Amino acid sequence: MRVLYIHAERFSWEPREPALDIRDEPSSGAASNALVVFVSVERGDTADEGFLKAVAGDVVDMARRVKAASVVIYPYAHLSSDLARPYVAREVLDKLYEAVKSQFGDGVYKAPFGYYKAFELKCLGHPLSELSRSFKPGESRSENKAE
Amino acid sequence: MRVLYIHAERFSWEPREPALDIRDEPSSGAASNALVVFVSVERGDTADEGFLKAVAGDVVDMARRVKAASVVIYPYAHLSSDLARPYVAREVLDKLYEAVKSQFGDGVYKAPFGYYKAFELKCLGHPLSELSRSFKPGESRSENKAE
Ligand SMILES: [Mg+2]
Ligand SMILES: [Mg+2]
Repeated sequence: MRVLYIHAERFSWEPREPALDIRDEPSSGAASNALVVFVSVERGDTADEGFLKAVAGDVVDMARRVKAASVVIYPYAHLSSDLARPYVAREVLDKLYEAVKSQFGDGVYKAPFGYYKAFELKCLGHPLSELSRSFKPGESRSENKAE
Repeated sequence: MRVLYIHAERFSWEPREPALDIRDEPSSGAASNALVVFVSVERGDTADEGFLKAVAGDVVDMARRVKAASVVIYPYAHLSSDLARPYVAREVLDKLYEAVKSQFGDGVYKAPFGYYKAFELKCLGHPLSELSRSFKPGESRSENKAE
């Protein structure tokens, strides 16, 4: 799983067209002071509870560090060349969303899987406002540096 | 080199803090109807003229396909876990910028390398509005699918 965190003053999304046969109900949304979690589910990722609890722990830790008021799980296929199949990706994203909600509480959103979506993002630009991560089931996290 | 294209109705950027010792002059900017080219320069990438001409050719082809009026080269370290050293990355980005300008003409911008930057982005959301690519010197392009 590859993840890009962006701390956004504002983030909103709106499905435009279906991209996959396997997809969620279309829904728009918006959040302020949000940690946006762009997620590419990769081959080998599973909906394993311990794995997703660990990923969710990192998400929530990051959200607390930047004092975000909300978290948006945003399905994003463009962070990896080695993607999981859609039905796996959708399940992993749903369970990640549940795991983040159970740790963070209110203010957790998920954009729908399987659509081309318009979005609007205002990245705050402080040193912790953009970070990427790689997670693998059974391995410890690999972290990337800021640009 | 890993690249993420986003076709944006609007894109603007503003350096906030230095992130690296090797960095450009700080400068803000904005563009409308822009193909934003987020670029991670990877280990093994070089400022080879033929390589960067090929990458620039893909950038300009994409800009024409989506009828973008401008192109923004945006240094972005978060697309890869295997980054080039900063002095190489900066040279590659500068030469890529020159190569894109020579093929696209007016309306090409580059955000400064080496800063934490705030940015604002409105992604249009049509099927070609987000695409990622992987380029290696001496290899043909590997392409990723939409989510
Ligand atoms: Mg950055
Ligand atoms: Mg997408």
